[in-house]
Amino acid sequence: MTMTGEMLIGATAVRGTEDTFYGINPATGDKLEPAYQTGTTADVDRACALAEAAFDTYRATSPEQRATFLESIAAGLEALGDELIQRAHLETALPIARLQGERGRTAGQLRLFARVLRDGRWQGATLDSALPERTPPRPDLRMQRIAVGPVAVFGASNFPLAFSVAGGDTASALAAGCPVVAKAHPAHPGTSELVGRVIQKAVADAGLPAGVFSMVQGVGNAIGTALVAHPAIQAVGFTGSRAGGLALMNVANSRPVPIPVYAEMSSINPVYLLPEALNARGEQIARELIDSLVLGVGQFCTNPGLLLAIEGPALDKFRATAHTALTGKPAGTMLTPGIHAAFERGVAQLSEISGLTRAACGVDTTGPNQARPVFFETSADKFVADHRMHAEVFGPSTVLVVCKDADALVEVTRLLEGQLTATVQADAGDHAVAAKLLPALERKVGRILFNGFPTGVEVCFAMVHGGPFPATSDTRTTSVGTTALDRFLRPVCYQNLPADLLPEALKDGNPLKLWRLKDGELGHA
Amino acid sequence: MTMTGEMLIGATAVRGTEDTFYGINPATGDKLEPAYQTGTTADVDRACALAEAAFDTYRATSPEQRATFLESIAAGLEALGDELIQRAHLETALPIARLQGERGRTAGQLRLFARVLRDGRWQGATLDSALPERTPPRPDLRMQRIAVGPVAVFGASNFPLAFSVAGGDTASALAAGCPVVAKAHPAHPGTSELVGRVIQKAVADAGLPAGVFSMVQGVGNAIGTALVAHPAIQAVGFTGSRAGGLALMNVANSRPVPIPVYAEMSSINPVYLLPEALNARGEQIARELIDSLVLGVGQFCTNPGLLLAIEGPALDKFRATAHTALTGKPAGTMLTPGIHAAFERGVAQLSEISGLTRAACGVDTTGPNQARPVFFETSADKFVADHRMHAEVFGPSTVLVVCKDADALVEVTRLLEGQLTATVQADAGDHAVAAKLLPALERKVGRILFNGFPTGVEVCFAMVHGGPFPATSDTRTTSVGTTALDRFLRPVCYQNLPADLLPEALKDGNPLKLWRLKDGELGHA
Repeated sequence: MTMTGEMLIGATAVRGTEDTFYGINPATGDKLEPAYQTGTTADVDRACALAEAAFDTYRATSPEQRATFLESIAAGLEALGDELIQRAHLETALPIARLQGERGRTAGQLRLFARVLRDGRWQGATLDSALPERTPPRPDLRMQRIAVGPVAVFGASNFPLAFSVAGGDTASALAAGCPVVAKAHPAHPGTSELVGRVIQKAVADAGLPAGVFSMVQGVGNAIGTALVAHPAIQAVGFTGSRAGGLALMNVANSRPVPIPVYAEMSSINPVYLLPEALNARGEQIARELIDSLVLGVGQFCTNPGLLLAIEGPALDKFRATAHTALTGKPAGTMLTPGIHAAFERGVAQLSEISGLTRAACGVDTTGPNQARPVFFETSADKFVADHRMHAEVFGPSTVLVVCKDADALVEVTRLLEGQLTATVQADAGDHAVAAKLLPALERKVGRILFNGFPTGVEVCFAMVHGGPFPATSDTRTTSVGTTALDRFLRPVCYQNLPADLLPEALKDGNPLKLWRLKDGELGHA
Repeated sequence: MTMTGEMLIGATAVRGTEDTFYGINPATGDKLEPAYQTGTTADVDRACALAEAAFDTYRATSPEQRATFLESIAAGLEALGDELIQRAHLETALPIARLQGERGRTAGQLRLFARVLRDGRWQGATLDSALPERTPPRPDLRMQRIAVGPVAVFGASNFPLAFSVAGGDTASALAAGCPVVAKAHPAHPGTSELVGRVIQKAVADAGLPAGVFSMVQGVGNAIGTALVAHPAIQAVGFTGSRAGGLALMNVANSRPVPIPVYAEMSSINPVYLLPEALNARGEQIARELIDSLVLGVGQFCTNPGLLLAIEGPALDKFRATAHTALTGKPAGTMLTPGIHAAFERGVAQLSEISGLTRAACGVDTTGPNQARPVFFETSADKFVADHRMHAEVFGPSTVLVVCKDADALVEVTRLLEGQLTATVQADAGDHAVAAKLLPALERKVGRILFNGFPTGVEVCFAMVHGGPFPATSDTRTTSVGTTALDRFLRPVCYQNLPADLLPEALKDGNPLKLWRLKDGELGHA
């Protein structure tokens, strides 16, 4: 497939007319052809008008049609073959194997939503029979969930496939029956164009209205702001920085008709190192933890940026091993100059805090955008007193907070901001402490994991990649896993509808053979 | 039970120290004893601190314990007997029979949530088995929904029982495991105190922490603002005016940690009078519609404030009957002087619009706070052009919009704001037109009903009392029906948790015998 540097507005390819930009190879600083131009608000208007025009037709497609459509996007991504992987590698410096894995995950995600569509539970079909003899008589009431409307999706910098143009937000919105207007991340415009053209072709091949998918490109905030402010847009998916998410939330809340923004923003992902686990396998935990910290140059929303442990000899052994392991880790190439600069700024700010010790550093390397892993240490008292240590430093940086006892662990937890994950390293002897921690963790995080590391987000039914603010803007939701679909649905109730006008999902006799809740009983009636 | 004029802060009764106010009998203008005093932000702080302190204990109660607790509140309300009905009647001028019905609905609502708790589907238990052989291995992942935290509930003026201190918001929040801090509506402080004391006693009788329920009282905005701004509060339930809802949304969005506001605000509830239905039974529809319009002096969120019909002889007959029916209807006593003044202001504003005809009026009566039913008429063109006609006038006022043809009906619908309900009066010959209308209606409203009237909201599984903004602040939710509970839950995922630390709902062997989604299959595994 040829990259032309154009945006995709419905069935057309259009060149932007504002600021020119390029994908940049962060490992070399080289510009990557072709040139891209930033779109205008007129481009956004056209994309949104097409999405609005497509909506009623698209949401009326059968779940089977949408499932087939999602599968054809998945197949199209795979058919791009090495071209996609190479371009993504050039634009992000992420390793080839990682990108191949991410492609598999992205295609698998689309196919999982196809399965969810066929299963049909997503519709939430609910029926309450009429009770004509009751005083007052009860009417016949039926409920289903329908698509909310066109959705704006903002690609993330750190997952050029799985959280970008055909990522989880797009997959779940399209599954729900919502047209998507994507804003490509300017750090990987070529990858975005390749993926966008796959979706554009899948729309055409399925005979769907062209407005089901558009993709704008651009640097700066104007085009993204215009997209969120557009009256046709009914919800927003975003993965990125706290500042970026808050800015979009402000735009969305200031609209004449406010809309939900699902922003996944900021998390330092505390890891609790409980004493018995450290006693039994502290050195192994230390090595694996450092591996997790530097994986992908620490550029994961679930990167372990905070370690909490109780002082004592077991911690001393862990600490020594962790320092040694980190000291051997080379710097790595970050995704963009901007992300690299923010990392250096964040590390410099932490380094200035008195009472926070820079305990170990990785190996410096040459070349642009190199981030050297770094390991800080402080006490619980100091951590609690200084909020600068609570801020996410996106990249391979972590802070070990040493607590006096288990109660202090719980205390610190209560003062944390909302998080995507919390990890507990615990052996059987730690379970009493873990049991005390759990209620505090449930209030703070979306996912609690034991004896693993947070940097791996399974796409499945039970996943929650979400959490209290500022981890996300909406703690009731997840951006990964099948329930991500729920974000783009709303319930509608039908009272005493004539049989011929009832939606398929709600007709007598259950022609779609759905799970339905009928008079409070779940079944196939 | 004695009314003392105190607020209920946890287990204590406390007198406010700010502005004094009274319940007012709107039929006479008389003050009703006892005097109430407005609470302070310190009172709010105490109530919220108690709620926060109670939260972990309360959310850890079993669903059975909470079900029993809700049932004891229902029984307590019923045990108040005539005292409650009489006080509510004095404070609101709502008829005794209506209030008895509303009490039944309020108790029934509490009992329905008890049933939902016992059923257990609300927990959304979801399990994905570990796949240790896969590359990479999949961990064991389990998800459940838990309570979001303490909830602020604002009582509505127009349902002193069903949407007030022990109404749907409180019932669903308590069912979810959230402590509640209620702000009583100042128009019925005595009713609120009676109901609040029932809940306070139920908390004590169940041995629950006192902070599970508090109720503050007051006039003015300060105490409500403080409540929504309080860091312990995690969600807000509100039923009332658009201005009131927007003000609370602003407070909630401006917090360091924003929280969801579930505000049910403003709706004019279009009624579509299709030609065949008017032909066959236009006079009956006219009479029933006018009855629905003046029911409860029009003080329902679902009051039919907009009628849409196609010009022609059938409409002429409907119109004549409707005018006659309305002309015979007496004015009625509104809930409060403020609501009455707003109604008069709204009618006066409509009356000034050129092109909007005041076609019929009800019979004037003497006494304070009397609202005379009124029926306006205009054309589709004029309605579309002047947004003043789209605003809710809370009370017995409606506007008939005459359209040229069925296409115009759909056009007008596309320009409406979000609504709680839309009603379609249609006979078999109208179904082709109705089928064209339905997609437009689905996008605008929470509930679509045929051949009935919108002023009756069943408490059941399939109900949606919600809809797009400004009908509500959150179109994904309902404030009536069992799924109202979902508003106060958030998902948490547990990865590789040791068996002894897993929540009951997620344990192997399904000890609670819940419906669970296991590896994508719904069942009891």
